[in-house]
Formats: sequence, C-alpha cells, structure tokens
Amino acid sequence: MNKIITISRQFSSGGREVGKRLAEALNFAYYDKELVQKVATKGGFDAEHVEKQSEQYSYQLFPYQIGQSFATYEPYHQLNVDLKVIQNKLLKEIAEKENAVIIGRCADYVLKEYKPFKVFIYASNMECKINRCNEKNTSDNKKSNDELIEEINSIDQKRAKYYNYITEQKWAEMSNYDLCIDTSSVGVKGAVEIIAKAIETKYN
Amino acid sequence: MNKIITISRQFSSGGREVGKRLAEALNFAYYDKELVQKVATKGGFDAEHVEKQSEQYSYQLFPYQIGQSFATYEPYHQLNVDLKVIQNKLLKEIAEKENAVIIGRCADYVLKEYKPFKVFIYASNMECKINRCNEKNTSDNKKSNDELIEEINSIDQKRAKYYNYITEQKWAEMSNYDLCIDTSSVGVKGAVEIIAKAIETKYN
Repeated sequence: MNKIITISRQFSSGGREVGKRLAEALNFAYYDKELVQKVATKGGFDAEHVEKQSEQYSYQLFPYQIGQSFATYEPYHQLNVDLKVIQNKLLKEIAEKENAVIIGRCADYVLKEYKPFKVFIYASNMECKINRCNEKNTSDNKKSNDELIEEINSIDQKRAKYYNYITEQKWAEMSNYDLCIDTSSVGVKGAVEIIAKAIETKYN
Repeated sequence: MNKIITISRQFSSGGREVGKRLAEALNFAYYDKELVQKVATKGGFDAEHVEKQSEQYSYQLFPYQIGQSFATYEPYHQLNVDLKVIQNKLLKEIAEKENAVIIGRCADYVLKEYKPFKVFIYASNMECKINRCNEKNTSDNKKSNDELIEEINSIDQKRAKYYNYITEQKWAEMSNYDLCIDTSSVGVKGAVEIIAKAIETKYN
C-alpha cells in the first residue's frame, strides 16, 4: 500500500509549505493546487470555481428542504456535487498510484481505507500568522492586524464547518490525527523534520 | 535556560513510559513519582495522599462559598492548598536546576515562564488503551472491557477538570501544546524518537 500523508492546517500556519517541503524531502508526489487543476480539467470546470468550492462548506451542495426531490436541484448545486465526486475519485486514484502528500480537502477522511498518516499543522501564536500573511502579501493593499485576525479566524471557521459537515468529525480535534505540530514553536523546517522522523519510525 | 519538557497525557496512552524513555535518551532528569516523594518529604505529608491529590480536581481546595473568609478553611482543605504550593515551588526549583522531563501536574502551565516544550500524548484507539491496562494489571482481578473503558474515561475527565480549573485553559486542546502525538499510531518508541527530533530541531 502506498504511503499517504494528509495535511490539515490552520490558515497561515505554514501547513502548505510544510507539505511541499516534506514531499520534496521524501520524494513523494505533492497535491494541492495540482489537484484543483486536475478536477477542473476532468469535470470541465473553471479552475477558480473549483478552488473556491473545494474546501468551502456550501449549503448549496444539498437540497433546500428535506424531502425535496433531486429533480429540483438547480444546475449550480449539481455542479458542486459533481465537483466533490470527481475530487474524491481523484484522491483515491492518487492513493492507488503513488506515495503522496495531500493538503486539505478532507483527504484524511476521504482516504481512510488507505490508512493515511494524518497530520494537523497549527500556529498557536497569532503574531506568527499575521507575519506570514504580511510576507505573502506583495500588493500595496496592506491590511491592519485586526483585519487580518478577522480574516484568519473566518477562514478557519469555514474550514472547520466544511470538515465537520463532510466527515461528521471535529476539525482540529487531536484524536482525529496521528500528529499535531505547532509551527510557531518548531518552525516550518522543524515540522518537516518531525514528520519525516514520524514516517521513518512508523514504516521502517 | 534549562530545557524542560512537560508531558501531559491521556490515561493509558503510554505517556509516562514515553517520558521515562525520553529522559533516558536525552540524559535529562525525570520527574513523576519522584516529585510526589519530594513533595511528601518536604511538606511532611503521606506520599499516598500526595499522589491522590496531585492531579485531582478538588473543590475542597477552595472556599465553600465566594466571599467566605480564608479563616473558615478546614484543616484538610488547607493541607491541599499547602500541597499545591509546595509542588509548584518544587517544579520551579527543578526548572532552575536542570534539564528535565516532567509528567503531568500542570507543569506546562506552572512553568510557563521557563518556556517548556509542551507535549500531549494520546491514544485515539481505545483498544490500545485497554490492552495497556490489561498488561499492567498483574493481579487476578481482571476487569471487563466496559469497566476499563469507564475507568479510562473517568480518569481523563478528572484530569481535564483539574487542568481546566488550575490553568483556565482547556486540557487536550492542541493549541496549548507544541506537539501532540498519538501512540496508537506511532507507538511509544516512535513517540520518543519524534519528540527527541523535535527537541533537536528546536534547540540546535
């Protein structure tokens, strides 16, 4: 069975960077935006729409009322249902094909039959998150710290809502993961080394 | 500043064993029952009483009613207040003196000014916890799985209640720790190696 590492992460915790560097270190495939592009191509969707929807809780994914017939779905809702189906199918194809690091997309839950190694990356220090946001923002449109905090918390709330709905588990509850790491303590480089050691000790 | 590793843990997760082996691997001092003995000696308490009280939430630690004068404490309550004071003082003496691994006792919170590396050890798989309980029970008095599950959950509830009261933080919430590890995934040996790597990457 291939080794699959799923990385769930708080917004601006550096989780995506951890995943990318980890995949390089272990010589595993890496899926994040790559997955978005694949879903878009396969389903004939617009890539921007896929990215927007792929981790968003969307009430529109489901019928307006219980008991309402499937026939009354509006095209937009059906589109999002199709998107999830394609995304989940692709995740399973990846797990069948190769060792991989996969960011977000409830892959820890979707791929549970493949027994992924489930990591959660967080940053307990809000200042670290704000600094990371500012480093990434290359535009002239700087946001205040208060605006950034609101944005960071709001994105995490959406991720939690989406994860909790899809998986019926609780996002960021440690018992759903094998390993949880605070990048504001050990840094991105440290997190990569810690996960690599965990993989070595678990599979060797 | 000395390196202090605090280990909080679910009951029967192997956290104590992780701490002991980690201290050996890093050549750090190790405090668990050793601390109990020291508190008992220093305060003139019975060691069994100290062990029973040292991680138990006890309403009797505090006045019966808000506004009630300290003078109305009963001797037993005062005894427990004294015990906590001595324990916290000893924890700080250890942190001043040497590199150490400390199990439980809210040391992550009590020693926050010493910036400890805070680890939480859990086991998401209840079967692993039951097996560990059975391995440790050398008596003829075997408990059923249901009895063990009740006992395991009850001890964790007490630990959480105690921790939440003392620290005003939430026990087992990942943001209170630097690293959280599931021993039912990586094993005790794996957890030791992962923490040792984290310490190496953080301090070197």
